Amino acid sequence: MSKEVISRSLEEQREQLGEYLLSGQKARASLLTGRLPIRNGFFTTNAHARNAYTPQEIVGGISDSEVLLPELLKKAGYVNKIVGKWHLGHRPKYHPLKHGFDEWFGSPNCHFGPYDNKERPNIPVYRDWDMIGRYYEDIQINHKTGESNLTQIYLQEALNFISKYGSTKQPFFLYWAIDATHAPVYASKPFLGSSRRGLYGDAVREIDSSIGKILELIKNMGIAKDTFVFFTSDNGAALISAPNQGGSNSPFLCGKQTTFEGGMRVPGIAWWPGQLPPGQVSFQLSNIMDLYTTSLALAGLDPPGDRPIDGIDLSPVMLEGKVTDRPIFFYRGNEMMAVRLGLYKAHYWTWTNSWEELSQGINFCPGQNITGITTHEQVEHDFNPLLFHLGRDPGEKYPISVLSNEYQQVMPRISYVVRQHMESLIPGEPQLNVCDLAVMNWSPPGCEKIGKCLNPPESKPWKCIWPH
Amino acid sequence: MSKEVISRSLEEQREQLGEYLLSGQKARASLLTGRLPIRNGFFTTNAHARNAYTPQEIVGGISDSEVLLPELLKKAGYVNKIVGKWHLGHRPKYHPLKHGFDEWFGSPNCHFGPYDNKERPNIPVYRDWDMIGRYYEDIQINHKTGESNLTQIYLQEALNFISKYGSTKQPFFLYWAIDATHAPVYASKPFLGSSRRGLYGDAVREIDSSIGKILELIKNMGIAKDTFVFFTSDNGAALISAPNQGGSNSPFLCGKQTTFEGGMRVPGIAWWPGQLPPGQVSFQLSNIMDLYTTSLALAGLDPPGDRPIDGIDLSPVMLEGKVTDRPIFFYRGNEMMAVRLGLYKAHYWTWTNSWEELSQGINFCPGQNITGITTHEQVEHDFNPLLFHLGRDPGEKYPISVLSNEYQQVMPRISYVVRQHMESLIPGEPQLNVCDLAVMNWSPPGCEKIGKCLNPPESKPWKCIWPH
Repeated sequence: MSKEVISRSLEEQREQLGEYLLSGQKARASLLTGRLPIRNGFFTTNAHARNAYTPQEIVGGISDSEVLLPELLKKAGYVNKIVGKWHLGHRPKYHPLKHGFDEWFGSPNCHFGPYDNKERPNIPVYRDWDMIGRYYEDIQINHKTGESNLTQIYLQEALNFISKYGSTKQPFFLYWAIDATHAPVYASKPFLGSSRRGLYGDAVREIDSSIGKILELIKNMGIAKDTFVFFTSDNGAALISAPNQGGSNSPFLCGKQTTFEGGMRVPGIAWWPGQLPPGQVSFQLSNIMDLYTTSLALAGLDPPGDRPIDGIDLSPVMLEGKVTDRPIFFYRGNEMMAVRLGLYKAHYWTWTNSWEELSQGINFCPGQNITGITTHEQVEHDFNPLLFHLGRDPGEKYPISVLSNEYQQVMPRISYVVRQHMESLIPGEPQLNVCDLAVMNWSPPGCEKIGKCLNPPESKPWKCIWPH
Repeated sequence: MSKEVISRSLEEQREQLGEYLLSGQKARASLLTGRLPIRNGFFTTNAHARNAYTPQEIVGGISDSEVLLPELLKKAGYVNKIVGKWHLGHRPKYHPLKHGFDEWFGSPNCHFGPYDNKERPNIPVYRDWDMIGRYYEDIQINHKTGESNLTQIYLQEALNFISKYGSTKQPFFLYWAIDATHAPVYASKPFLGSSRRGLYGDAVREIDSSIGKILELIKNMGIAKDTFVFFTSDNGAALISAPNQGGSNSPFLCGKQTTFEGGMRVPGIAWWPGQLPPGQVSFQLSNIMDLYTTSLALAGLDPPGDRPIDGIDLSPVMLEGKVTDRPIFFYRGNEMMAVRLGLYKAHYWTWTNSWEELSQGINFCPGQNITGITTHEQVEHDFNPLLFHLGRDPGEKYPISVLSNEYQQVMPRISYVVRQHMESLIPGEPQLNVCDLAVMNWSPPGCEKIGKCLNPPESKPWKCIWPH
């Protein structure tokens, strides 16, 4: 019997976990392509070292030239479903069913809003090819109480999919991309007020409970030993939204939007009864891109041979307890900000955000301020990168002295790895440079069937502004 | 059969724990008296809101009028031993064997040094009534390599004591006060380099391994179901010593020396096979003082009825899962800085340390700086205490607005509790006001037997200076 693969994406409280994957902005594209954003095009060149994403006005999305995980799995007979947030482009050419998925329930963008449908349309919700409604019109999220049934709807979609294909021995891949812990945070009525951690904690509890129900179904159907489940998140906690709408990064420095550990560390939990002994902790340095390669390996497939793949196969890590020494490169937009090798991390550039943003109250490191490290100018440390030992100093507070033996021994190894990476790197075509109000979700496919089409304004493309 | 009681004191990595006790400076006196330092005399009035302790030059110590836990247990037939750091006064009148303990192996002060035995003597190590040597002379700690066998010696003392009395059905109390994670941090050779967290991590691993051996012995002797074991620490991680000589406070603000959560939260783990189900987490707000009352209750004893006791009996919490609503008052020296009630914490005074100290590099909140909260002047917030919800905001970064409904509803309840506490409080006689070089460990009892007596200088008492 072939193996089923389920992935999950979640921002959540992570104090309890022994080890972490590394992730960061643009994780969804990396998860599905196995490649760094600088290769798969999920970056901008409009300004130096900027985080870009896919709001409604973005023109770009995932390129046809990228080979997504579900495309490959499909060839091996898998049926693939995405539940929740897609975020790899919302224009018709980027539709997930054109990139390997067979089913979709969810949205192309974040559940921001409500909008007025004049200046800006509300975000559509799709079932497969067609939109079935819009947030704040047909799918409710109450900002005042935080109440929404959305996670329950996503849960039901997951359970139905697993029931349908799990019973027929049909191999399946479910990408369960819930977003209840992304601001604006929400939970359904039974979970409101159920945590000691406010609405954010309530959302985490609802996700936790939902995952319990998914695992229970898999066990009850007798397919657990053939179903690989992986739980992770797309970036560290968004401290800018904390405490009411964001999580905690515990000892790690800063949060989402930065290349400090607080922006990069995410939980990584694998579940596969009968194959993976429970309660194991691996110190393997890994990244969300590895799930691409790992999933392919578990399905008996090879990754594409015609392009660099950054993910590694974690199955020897999980099944045999092996650990591989490999670097991870931390990009912000078009710049390699930092690199991790073993327990060392070297920052070649530091930047949290601009003084201008900071003075407006936009702070990605609330309560944290370390001279020379959490800089508000873009500072290049090319000659003497800031070096940290994340075992002794997970909070990146105490750079290792440039004059120390340790620095002199470690940096040449890191420099070599960086040089190798840079020399062979061919950046992809940047997809996140152009914005246009005309491409917003005015008239998504299917809008005509439910009378939800809106008139787009005239097309006036501009270079998107990414302030941080 | 009566119950055996073992307590442990340890500063350690605490990221893995579900809930925390509260503790702080002067925890040892509170542990053994069940009372706040402001009552048992472990504070100073030399200046406002200062942390004092018992260095070699301190004249004071634990008062004869305090009734220590081992004194009461002794009356009920227990044999009591302290292994490790005493720290309740080193002059003969404060000797632990004069305050209820039957056996002692360890030291009256911290293992600082080496000293020259002229300006300042090395700290003595006692077996029972007599000193048997001094640190850096007879008991080695290598600052360069971090190597010392001290934890192994303390372990052997514990194992011998348990073996001796556990086999005779003699009820016993062991206070295992190891100090390997207190700067200067040390570990024995097999543990050096064994962690990913430097010497500090090695010390934690050695303590962890030692505790494993103690629990194993208790199980192998068949006395586990009659032996209550509790593991905790005397204060939050000393960030001033981090990362090489100190731990991490994870999401909590600041560290040891402050009344922020990073100075106060400590792990609390109870072990009692057959009585306490493993893996339970309690949300009971508790404090190291509670171990006094709890231990007495488990031994079938009442706390003294002639004085206020601040500790509560945790046995209903552990055995029946009950939770009691009770306040905890956070003192710094002679000042109530903050109070905790449920998940709320109100700061009446804020102070990390002085600008003068900070400018010398003494920083109790490295990398953390929150305007109006981590103040470097002593700031009174009497009219509008800074209020935090530690469920939503464990890092004390987002004070609740004074104008909010939440503040208006919660603060009157807290004010009422504070008023009640203040109206009934009678401070004890401050023991930590007077210093004198003549009282240092020049000629501890037994020094004559081993030729280790030194001549004290002339007595010139002064008011001790406590800078923070």
